[in-house]
Amino acid sequence: MSYKVEKLVINYKTLEEFKKFKEYGLQELSMLEDLEANIIENDIKSPFYGIYFGDKLVARMSLYRVEKKFDRYFQPPQDYLELWKLEVIPEYQNKGYGSALVNYAKTYGLPIKTNPRVKSQDFWIKMGFTPVQYDMERDLGTNPLVWTPGSPEEQTIEEPSA
Amino acid sequence: MSYKVEKLVINYKTLEEFKKFKEYGLQELSMLEDLEANIIENDIKSPFYGIYFGDKLVARMSLYRVEKKFDRYFQPPQDYLELWKLEVIPEYQNKGYGSALVNYAKTYGLPIKTNPRVKSQDFWIKMGFTPVQYDMERDLGTNPLVWTPGSPEEQTIEEPSA
Repeated sequence: MSYKVEKLVINYKTLEEFKKFKEYGLQELSMLEDLEANIIENDIKSPFYGIYFGDKLVARMSLYRVEKKFDRYFQPPQDYLELWKLEVIPEYQNKGYGSALVNYAKTYGLPIKTNPRVKSQDFWIKMGFTPVQYDMERDLGTNPLVWTPGSPEEQTIEEPSA
Repeated sequence: MSYKVEKLVINYKTLEEFKKFKEYGLQELSMLEDLEANIIENDIKSPFYGIYFGDKLVARMSLYRVEKKFDRYFQPPQDYLELWKLEVIPEYQNKGYGSALVNYAKTYGLPIKTNPRVKSQDFWIKMGFTPVQYDMERDLGTNPLVWTPGSPEEQTIEEPSA
């Protein structure tokens, strides 16, 4: 399956579409306030990427490049991508939209870190991510998983040998 | 209502009780592994605090003191408490257990920061917490709220003046 991943521009239409996603929070409210107060222009580039089905936004994620000097997850420290708010609206789930977004993030060739909800663990493992060794001072209440370029694209269940 | 808040000790019984909570994740798995591998002793103190009803753990939270040098939330920078995994098991909700835990955290007299789920926003506002100004590089996908000593204990709805 091949979907077109687009960098989303922030305008009232996009922010209205964001309300359909469960993980709508301070980030979206802050963008809305900035738009209303003319602090940002209409159609400014955002850290959000999404996939449209027709003119409907059905999947999104946020991506941000963290600089090497702030890296506490990879050895040796390096620039990496933080991926958050990966979400597909319910009617469009299990059709490969989530994987398409994650695979898009992988094309940057940088390590990726994410802090997903516990329940999505299986999806991330399937996508080649591994849970980190928990470090309370660093991770607090989060459940980080990481992927590094060169990790298998998707893990496959090995066939038992005959 | 007055409940006894206890610092939880980590043993197999506590870790078994933790499985009843929805926000069971890497932190708990890591404690379980450390216990099984004898890296930590039985009954070691944990960052978890909880309230028992009889011998049943019905509410818990995790608290950790973050040092001033890592503070990016308060002005001037100071030691503060990070509060996470505040949760009351469903049958015991709306009986004041959550408030009792938060009020306990407030007794340390330090500012508190938390990153709750969006849906619990109303609870935190009622407890005197305020959403921070969103800063993407710092907050990424989180929705932090803060409380500082001297903030109202619980916000009350003002009666309209007669």
